[in-house]
Amino acid sequence: MGAGAGVVIERLRQGLPGEAVLTDPDVTAAYARDQAGFCPAGTPGVVVLPRTVEQVRHVMRTATATRTPVVPQGARTGLSGGANASDGCIVLSLVKMDRILEISPVDRLAVVEPGVVNADLSRAVAAHGLSYPPDPSSWEECTIGGNIGTASGGLCCVKYGVTAEYVLGLDVVLADGRLLSTGRRTAKGVAGYDLTRLFVGSEGSLGVVVRAVLALRPEPPRPLALAAEFPTVEAACDAVCRIMGGGGGVDGGGGEPAHTPALLELMDRTTLRAVNDLTRMGLPETTEALLLAGFDTPDAAADLAAVAGLCKAAGATEVVPAEDAAESELLLAARRSALVALDRVKGTTMIDDVCVPRSRLADLLKGVAAVADRNGLTIGVLAHAGDGNSHPTVCFDASDPDEAARARASFDEIMALGLELGGTITGEHGVGLLKKEWLARELGPVGLELQRGVKQVFDPLSLLNPGKLF
Amino acid sequence: MGAGAGVVIERLRQGLPGEAVLTDPDVTAAYARDQAGFCPAGTPGVVVLPRTVEQVRHVMRTATATRTPVVPQGARTGLSGGANASDGCIVLSLVKMDRILEISPVDRLAVVEPGVVNADLSRAVAAHGLSYPPDPSSWEECTIGGNIGTASGGLCCVKYGVTAEYVLGLDVVLADGRLLSTGRRTAKGVAGYDLTRLFVGSEGSLGVVVRAVLALRPEPPRPLALAAEFPTVEAACDAVCRIMGGGGGVDGGGGEPAHTPALLELMDRTTLRAVNDLTRMGLPETTEALLLAGFDTPDAAADLAAVAGLCKAAGATEVVPAEDAAESELLLAARRSALVALDRVKGTTMIDDVCVPRSRLADLLKGVAAVADRNGLTIGVLAHAGDGNSHPTVCFDASDPDEAARARASFDEIMALGLELGGTITGEHGVGLLKKEWLARELGPVGLELQRGVKQVFDPLSLLNPGKLF
Repeated sequence: MGAGAGVVIERLRQGLPGEAVLTDPDVTAAYARDQAGFCPAGTPGVVVLPRTVEQVRHVMRTATATRTPVVPQGARTGLSGGANASDGCIVLSLVKMDRILEISPVDRLAVVEPGVVNADLSRAVAAHGLSYPPDPSSWEECTIGGNIGTASGGLCCVKYGVTAEYVLGLDVVLADGRLLSTGRRTAKGVAGYDLTRLFVGSEGSLGVVVRAVLALRPEPPRPLALAAEFPTVEAACDAVCRIMGGGGGVDGGGGEPAHTPALLELMDRTTLRAVNDLTRMGLPETTEALLLAGFDTPDAAADLAAVAGLCKAAGATEVVPAEDAAESELLLAARRSALVALDRVKGTTMIDDVCVPRSRLADLLKGVAAVADRNGLTIGVLAHAGDGNSHPTVCFDASDPDEAARARASFDEIMALGLELGGTITGEHGVGLLKKEWLARELGPVGLELQRGVKQVFDPLSLLNPGKLF
Repeated sequence: MGAGAGVVIERLRQGLPGEAVLTDPDVTAAYARDQAGFCPAGTPGVVVLPRTVEQVRHVMRTATATRTPVVPQGARTGLSGGANASDGCIVLSLVKMDRILEISPVDRLAVVEPGVVNADLSRAVAAHGLSYPPDPSSWEECTIGGNIGTASGGLCCVKYGVTAEYVLGLDVVLADGRLLSTGRRTAKGVAGYDLTRLFVGSEGSLGVVVRAVLALRPEPPRPLALAAEFPTVEAACDAVCRIMGGGGGVDGGGGEPAHTPALLELMDRTTLRAVNDLTRMGLPETTEALLLAGFDTPDAAADLAAVAGLCKAAGATEVVPAEDAAESELLLAARRSALVALDRVKGTTMIDDVCVPRSRLADLLKGVAAVADRNGLTIGVLAHAGDGNSHPTVCFDASDPDEAARARASFDEIMALGLELGGTITGEHGVGLLKKEWLARELGPVGLELQRGVKQVFDPLSLLNPGKLF
């Protein structure tokens, strides 16, 4: 810490209840890192768990007065090290600020504190016939504040978009403890620069979100899904292009109506095998790729029939539509278990998050297979295929230093490939510590300079989550 | 100009073809202002009409070298003075950069130059079965660059959102002539702060957009619409709440499914009379408010029937569903002609653009009527009612100084009312010169300071559209 650790803790206690200040190293150690691999994590000097905006302001005023870095945290389900502690920092956990303050069906919005768990919000608004679409895989654990920090995605994004599109307004405690209200609680608004959106995806580096106004939608019907088996990954990607682009494959122009599924997910053979091993679901292991397409439209069965035709035209060997929403849910459960399943293949995984234009998804997956071959690695791929957002997941034995080194190297090769194909190094997981050097490459020197300039405006002393992003 | 005018013009000519540099005061005067009233406009020192990115860079390098302010312009259809010239400035008109560079059905995107006219893009992508939803009233004239600058809305926003949601990536020439590429051409991406979104709605004050990657959607069916007549404006707003909020009126909770129309527009009696006078359409002048609801869903007739029921429950005296898309288009034509019609009432109009939570729309309209009474003015109201975005339009005789002064005063009263009701001073028209002092009130001192800090990062010499926004 900038000042003596004791001084900082003493000042923190002046504006926080006793139980909100954790100093026992055995306890604070649990707050050291999120779920990313290959990222350094320091030892927190202290962990604070405020329950009010005023308490957060006290924490930030203390941090500024004592020049102590602050690492904001949600549920630490992040995958890029963005919530990892630095040595001697104040870990500012927002999980105790977990109240849903308002749900308005007419204005279609919810006002929440940052520690509200994503799934809790989803269930609460469902009781009003509404939905909060963003659905990251960790939705039963992750918090809205964390979702805003990383601009999280999920399965539904192909139809409903990402977290950013649902954040209307924010209350933010700035580095010096001042309170900023930005954005609105109206459907539209263009008053000044969009600072609200600037905070979404800023990974706690510009301010601490203490309240969010979120847009809601009418709850759609539960989706009806189909599973389509393909003899090659390329054929599955061709089907994705036909579904999204009007029938004509990768070049488009098929002249048929394009579809907008509520989900369009791809799993490769490695992933399918892993899921079978975990769940005994009996997924088809002989195919090279499985596509799951779901529709929540008024006539979902008709949409599925049309998509089944497009899958067959792209070379699907088998297309199995679910009979009902419950059967569809089973298919989705397989997809949702994929990461856990891959984790068991060799004990450790490193999940990447590269997004390319969907017309280049086949090229990306071909390239990933080559990377796996070249490095002698097992890489399972699952993808939000409709968005071109893939999660190549390296399965390795962390106790084997050589294999771990090859895993790390393959990760870099995959990001290079993503950029080469006109994509981005992160579709939804964020930059954190893991992708710092790659962010610089993606942004280029002019973009990086401007981003640093923006950081400087909000956090001139560089106290908020220092060392993350850039 | 900062340097002598002759010097600046001479330097500009070194990197621009002769016909791209206009100096004849009779010609340049035509570039002095947009369509806003009550806004000062200066005399341009020179107007430049570049056709290439390199030429724009030359203009900005020249501006920086000579410390000359630059006012970027599209079609000057703006309604807030955001494109008005300042004395001696370089007017940078982007209208000659009007090429559609790419349309990709599979990636669902278009790449365009800033001078492309909104309707031209819409027609071009329609040929591929795609749509670019944002549809400001001026869509046959306004440019994509201008739409990005003001973050334009339109009728379709209630279902499809505003311009900001369709801007994936931008190439921007900075104040010093450097080129920034920001954003992406992928469906998702969270690499660093969202500078792309920062430019949307920045009114040319942060950089000059020279290329945009825009998201597209599959073209929906043409909407089927109904017209519902109400005996009071309050009843019409109650219907809006029932339609959007699940049947239960302003407090919501009706337990019925909520609807998402593709348009939900309101016109008051003053507006209806004006439209009739202009078009002889025979709209019902005896009613106090007409609601137009349109659906582009697979079973639009069923949606209209449900909405008709909600309108009747809210007190509609008559509900007339269109038989087909052509009849629906006629209803929309009435709405689209409303501003021109109101212009003829007393020769001049001043259109406001206040957005409130839709649950407060009735309160706003009641307040606007009181403002009209108090000031002895005719104020017609049209509203994107589904979004809570209203355009109270003051009709006055500009040659009567007293009436003009009352018009201006009523404008301020309406904005104060909008803020009081939890709304924003601008839903879609922007701040420009017209609403500068109101922006400061809406943002508050902390927000304003940060906005100015951001401006400083991008434009340290304050050369880009100085004096606009704040």
